[in-house]
Amino acid sequence: MMRARQPQQERSRATRDRLLYVTVEMLAAQGWSATTVAAVAEAAGVSRGAAQHHFPTREALITAVMEQMFDAMTSEASASATEFPVDHEARVAAVVDRAVAIYVGTDFKAALQVWSAAASDPGLRAVILPLEAKLARAAHRFTVTALDPDGEHPEAHRLAQVTLDLARGLGLADTLSDDSRRRRQVVATWTEQLAAALR
Amino acid sequence: MMRARQPQQERSRATRDRLLYVTVEMLAAQGWSATTVAAVAEAAGVSRGAAQHHFPTREALITAVMEQMFDAMTSEASASATEFPVDHEARVAAVVDRAVAIYVGTDFKAALQVWSAAASDPGLRAVILPLEAKLARAAHRFTVTALDPDGEHPEAHRLAQVTLDLARGLGLADTLSDDSRRRRQVVATWTEQLAAALR
Repeated sequence: MMRARQPQQERSRATRDRLLYVTVEMLAAQGWSATTVAAVAEAAGVSRGAAQHHFPTREALITAVMEQMFDAMTSEASASATEFPVDHEARVAAVVDRAVAIYVGTDFKAALQVWSAAASDPGLRAVILPLEAKLARAAHRFTVTALDPDGEHPEAHRLAQVTLDLARGLGLADTLSDDSRRRRQVVATWTEQLAAALR
Repeated sequence: MMRARQPQQERSRATRDRLLYVTVEMLAAQGWSATTVAAVAEAAGVSRGAAQHHFPTREALITAVMEQMFDAMTSEASASATEFPVDHEARVAAVVDRAVAIYVGTDFKAALQVWSAAASDPGLRAVILPLEAKLARAAHRFTVTALDPDGEHPEAHRLAQVTLDLARGLGLADTLSDDSRRRRQVVATWTEQLAAALR
């Protein structure tokens, strides 16, 4: 009996993961209005009934996507800081790159769609805000630890905030067109400032 | 004849301005989906026919709103830099505050709604991108001139970019909840960095 149930649970889990994956891609590429449970099910090659078994409402689907996305971003941001270079300049550059990577890419584009829908939807906002606060804390903790592993620079806390707000602004600038060339210059300028401030 | 026509033109102009004003408020408070020509007309106390005379389609309405908004932001950003304090620290603080003011507030919240809708709408994106590029140039020119009025610091160009990207990130952080307390600290930290870099 156990052996027969396991594969079914695995299939169910795989279907759920696939629906979540397709939802993120669809939010990023087609936007909030297009991303319904029915459209996601069709794009994922899953029957509408099976999709609704996992996510009875659009709110359930979006909530699950945001939880998964923020969990992934949080654990990425929480990853051990020991992997960073020992050399001061190289280390600061790697930390800034990691912070920017949180906000540039498909996940952020998808999150921005939910974020702007939440601006006029109190129910959705109540779901998003605690997840966002959790991510912000994890990203800040990671950035401070990586910038100042020996706790020698009290100003690292505030400089980490600047780094993350700048990264968020760069992410937003990249949503309508490829901003990577300009971004490289901005990142280099801030990295130089930050390395000097923490020397 | 001329005297009779003038008031009608003025009334028509006032109706148009009122529709644009209500559209910005509605985008910021109720989001993209809610902001239709019919809903705006009703909230503005204008007949649907009169609203459609000015804006036959939603795209026409949104385009006009974005043009007006970007024009206002561009001219504000282009305002004379002579009004800024002479004292170096005070001047840098005033410039950073002005840059942040571009991205924090109702106009930015409304623009963000259009921005995220444009992410999946090539027609809308084609309207937004040139306006956004024009604003970015004006904001950058203003920030560079205000930070470095005598053209003594070539690095002012890149530091102005960092300032504006940071301001954009702070604007985004303020869209779902009031972030003003945290923002004050981030702004103070960057202002200090920037003043030191340009001393």
